[in-house]
Formats: sequence, C-alpha cells, structure tokens
Amino acid sequence: MITNAYGTHAGDKPLEPLAIERREPGPKDVSIDIQFCGVCHSDLHTARAEWGEAKYPCVPGHEIVGTVTAVGSEVDRFAVGDTVGVGCLVNSCGHCASCKEGLENYCENGFTLTYDSVTKDAPGHTLGGYSQHIVVQEHFVLKINHATDQLAAVAPLLCAGITTYSPLKHWAAGPGKKVGVVGIGGLGHMAIKLSHALGAHTAAFTSTPAKKQDALDLGADEVIVSRDEDEMAKHIGTFDLILDTVAASHNLDAYTALLKRDGALVLLGVPEHPHPSPNVGALIFQRKTIGGSLIGGLPETQEMLDFCAEKGIVSDIEMIAMPQIDEAYDRMLKSDVRYRFVIDNATIPAA
Amino acid sequence: MITNAYGTHAGDKPLEPLAIERREPGPKDVSIDIQFCGVCHSDLHTARAEWGEAKYPCVPGHEIVGTVTAVGSEVDRFAVGDTVGVGCLVNSCGHCASCKEGLENYCENGFTLTYDSVTKDAPGHTLGGYSQHIVVQEHFVLKINHATDQLAAVAPLLCAGITTYSPLKHWAAGPGKKVGVVGIGGLGHMAIKLSHALGAHTAAFTSTPAKKQDALDLGADEVIVSRDEDEMAKHIGTFDLILDTVAASHNLDAYTALLKRDGALVLLGVPEHPHPSPNVGALIFQRKTIGGSLIGGLPETQEMLDFCAEKGIVSDIEMIAMPQIDEAYDRMLKSDVRYRFVIDNATIPAA
Repeated sequence: MITNAYGTHAGDKPLEPLAIERREPGPKDVSIDIQFCGVCHSDLHTARAEWGEAKYPCVPGHEIVGTVTAVGSEVDRFAVGDTVGVGCLVNSCGHCASCKEGLENYCENGFTLTYDSVTKDAPGHTLGGYSQHIVVQEHFVLKINHATDQLAAVAPLLCAGITTYSPLKHWAAGPGKKVGVVGIGGLGHMAIKLSHALGAHTAAFTSTPAKKQDALDLGADEVIVSRDEDEMAKHIGTFDLILDTVAASHNLDAYTALLKRDGALVLLGVPEHPHPSPNVGALIFQRKTIGGSLIGGLPETQEMLDFCAEKGIVSDIEMIAMPQIDEAYDRMLKSDVRYRFVIDNATIPAA
Repeated sequence: MITNAYGTHAGDKPLEPLAIERREPGPKDVSIDIQFCGVCHSDLHTARAEWGEAKYPCVPGHEIVGTVTAVGSEVDRFAVGDTVGVGCLVNSCGHCASCKEGLENYCENGFTLTYDSVTKDAPGHTLGGYSQHIVVQEHFVLKINHATDQLAAVAPLLCAGITTYSPLKHWAAGPGKKVGVVGIGGLGHMAIKLSHALGAHTAAFTSTPAKKQDALDLGADEVIVSRDEDEMAKHIGTFDLILDTVAASHNLDAYTALLKRDGALVLLGVPEHPHPSPNVGALIFQRKTIGGSLIGGLPETQEMLDFCAEKGIVSDIEMIAMPQIDEAYDRMLKSDVRYRFVIDNATIPAA
C-alpha cells in the first residue's frame, strides 16, 4: 500500500511530502495508522546527513503512536482498534544471547532501526514515523494504556523515555539513591520525571540558572548549576548514578568527582568530537565507572510504558504540523523546545 | 625503638641506610620483625619524587611479611611468633560507610598509607617496609598461612595480589567468565594466576610475542598479542572483564571493543599522561563500562591470602639484598624482572 510520508532525498534539502510504499502485512505483522510521532535529535542528524550519508529517500521518526488497523493471522497480542507504539527498533536477529534475554537493543547480529536500516521491503531501507501508516512485526509493537488525550505526549516515551528508563533500572535508581541528570532536554526531562517516579532523590544539572524552576517543576528534588564550582563542590562523593544526556563534548571529571564509591556516570549521547579524556585516578580511588546505555529492549519498553501509564507520566511536548519540521529542527538546535516536538501525523500532506 | 631501614633524603639521591624510630606498641598494636618486603612501582615513584615531592626521609615498602614479636594488651587475633603481613594501609577513619563495610581502601576520610602518609608518630609521616621492624594496629595486620619457604613470595600478595584479586571478585570473575589481563608485570602476573585460580577462562594480552610462553606458564588459557590486529579482532565482543595493569598512556578502545555486552574494562594504573579519550559509542552500543579499582579492604585481603594459601599461589619473585634496590628500580623501569623483586630484610645494613 502507498501512504503519505514526509522526508528528504538529500542531506542538504528540506523535507517534503513523499508517497511511500508499506509492505503487505504478513502473518506476524501489525498494521498501524500513525497518529503522532515525536521528533528526536537522531531524526535531524540522519535527515541532514550529519552522521554521514543517509539512505534516501529518508523518512525519519521513531517515537510512534497509532491505532491498529489490521493484524496478521499469527498475531495474538493485538487487535484492530488497539492503541500501540513503535520505538527505535523494528527487527533484530531473535536468537543471540541479547535477543533471548529481551535486550534486542543490544542484538549481537545487528538490529533493524525503524528508519535508515537495510530491509527487504521497498525501497530497501526502513522508513520511519513521519508517515501515516506503518507495518511492524508484532514483537516490536508496544501496548499503550495511557488515556486518549495523552497519546501525543506518550510518543516521546518510545525513545526518550526508554533511553533514560533503561539505565535508571539497570543501575538500580530507586529509594535511598541519589541520581543526577545532566542536560534538561528531550532525554533529560524524561530522566528527571522517571528517576523521581522511581523514588530516587533526583538532582538536575543545568548550565543555565534560568532553567532551575523548570527542572523543579519536572520533579527534580534539587537543581545544581553546573557552572557554579562552589555549588558543584557541595555534592562531591554523593551521587550513586549520573545520567549524562549531553552529546556535545564536555568535561566528564566534573561529574565523576560527584559520584560516591561504586557510582556510575552513564553517557547516553555520542559526542561529535571526543570528550576530554576522563581522569583515571577519579575512577580508581572510589571504584567508579563510566558507562554507556542505548535505548532499551522490548520487554523493558513495555514495562516503562506500563509504569508511565500507572504513574500518569508523559513527555512535555509542543505539537507541530508536519510542514513545520525544518523549523522545528532549527529550534531544536537552539534547545528552543520544552521538551519534545511531536508531529500530528494527520497534517502530513499528500505528495 | 630504633630500627635499621633503607631510604632516601631526596628524590634525586640513591637510597641509603637509615636509623628510624618505631613507636612504642600501644594496646591495639602488633610489633613485627620484617623478614621480606616486595618492591612495588609505587616505591620507585615515591622515592624518586615522580609523583611530586615525597616526605623525607622516605622509607618505601608496602608488601611486608614478618614475625610478631609483641602484641598490645587488647590484641586478640595475633600472638608472638605468628607470621603476618602488612599491605598498603596502616590506618583509616574506621567510621565512614566504606570503613564500616571493610573497604578501608575507599575510606571517605582518607586512609593512612604504609609509607609517605601523615601520622602522629615520628618523624610525622609513615615509614614503610624497607626496614627491620614495624608497629601496626591489629586491624591492619593480616594472618599468613603459607608454608615457611613461601614467605618471600607471599610478600607481593599484599599489594599486587589484592590489587588484582579485588576487581576480579567485584566484577565476578569465575567459571563461565572470560577475563583478560593487559600487561604481564608485577600486577599482571598475579592477575593471571588469580583469575585462573578463580575458574575464569583467562587470556593474557602482551605486546611482546616472546612473553607468550611465560603467560601460559602463569596459568593463562590463551595469550593474545595486542599488536596483532587480526588476532585481536578474533576476540571482539567476547570478554566479560579486562583488567588493565598498564599505567602508560595507551589506546583503551582496542580493549573496550573486545568486551561483550555489560563487560567492564577496569584500570588499575593512573597514567602520567592521559589515555586517548575512549570512544563513547563503544560503551553505549553494548552497555559497557570503564572503571577503576584500588587495592582492596582488609577483610578481602585476608580472604585473598587464605585463598592463595589454600591454592598454593604465590608471586614469582627475584630476591635481592637491600643495597641492590636502586639497581632493581632501574631494572623495573625496563620491565626486567619476572615478576617482582623482594627484599631480604636481613640484608639491611646498619646506618
């Protein structure tokens, strides 16, 4: 079937209306009419070829919420009319150790991303959620139990939500723990909400004192201005976990110094230019670690969605119409969004 | 009391005979005649002021084995005639969270090193194991159950042994795990022996193919020549843990690439110049960590000594007489020792 989409034919061209093909649903497939799609920095990096040439035409989008319109004969978890989500992944090998543990995000044989990954379907690579319809294997489809009026704000949970929830759980954020969040953007604002909801004492780091109240409103127990050395010094050796959502190159030692023994600084973004080499002594002297984490597996994504539905957690969003996407990208580059743009997919024009 | 020691009055002077004072043993003290003292790189760095000016006179040595000659009235774990060890620490605050957990090596209020740390005793800083007698609080004295003819080779367990044992245990080396050891020197040769004894599949990395047989003899299941890119590539994504004992600045990405999901690269040495900044993507894509570890706590040191006594594990050593120490330092700088020099403290001349 042909569906309306929005994408680009080259990294230096604006996005435009496209007509794309979706495969006929197989026995294990779920057909989804997309209602909303969050706008992630990865969309921008890929569409604008900042991570190297993308596969064209490029249709970004991996924070997808929609309604099931058809299910294959072997699908048993979904029925027509269900509200569902699709995140960053639409396939993985299914048989490696990671896949068997439900960690498809760490598939040892290479997962298939929701866009810009090689696939057998036309046109040979995956096309994402800036479109009105998608066909996805049941295993990679999530149930959404939020209220109908929350669905646009649920979309960013599929990437920003799980990307922060997974390391919070893996590094055991919860009551009695002190968790820091560096960067109050798309990922960071979800990290604050989720860490708080998990019961951890949650501190937000910001370089801009003006964002202090915003961070408190998101659920931070305290806000630390990272440029204020005296304020930072008060927290030396006190954090169990710091999630660092800032992809730009920056000094990691300022944060490892704040960890207590066995604390972890977990990086969620890959910097374009390397961070200054972290101080090894800071790690050795209190057995600290610097780690990384990538999205989350499908079972954990469902767990996160259920947790958020139960706690009433959604993303803070600004809705846009599809043709505003390039303007939205430009505003994202200036961090001028609180905290995630979400596309109303009904506004995608016909090509 | 006055005892014979060997040390230096300045970083640019050779070590020489000294007469030093040891405190009168208090109720909680153990008085020890030192038989053997291992020679650690830290001794050299401190004596030669490579880590900045030391406190002079400087008497290095923190791999101490000796015999109890007297015990204070409150000492109940040791009696005159016992064979005992003293490692890197002789005091800590005793009441912080780390000390309460038996992790005096991570004391939050600053531990007292066996040499070059401030103390109330004359001359105002601690003096180490290059001496014939030492007085140490019971809590920082270890029982040694090895055979009498093994005692010289036990000495390096007090630093090199525990420094590698502690991260092996913390990061759960054991049956079913694949552990790598980078650098086959004082620390590395103990890491190989201990990892093997703990039941892990143990691989040694060496830059010199000539060391292959040595590593196998130490207990390595396999040896990987780190300069051979093809050989390294065969091990990508297979290691649970890699202990990196090399303090010189080097490329960490070559090792993080070899870790499997959730694997850890643990650094045991602080480089004089920073390592090249590690690749963050390598951490994120399989949730890997880079960490550090420092010696071990007293309970774990006793556990390690008991484990080694049971398994018959000692260090591979070359005995020296005290006056050979500067020559030994020069040979250590060329890695010309298999694998640890140990001083026969009976050879310390009177000042």
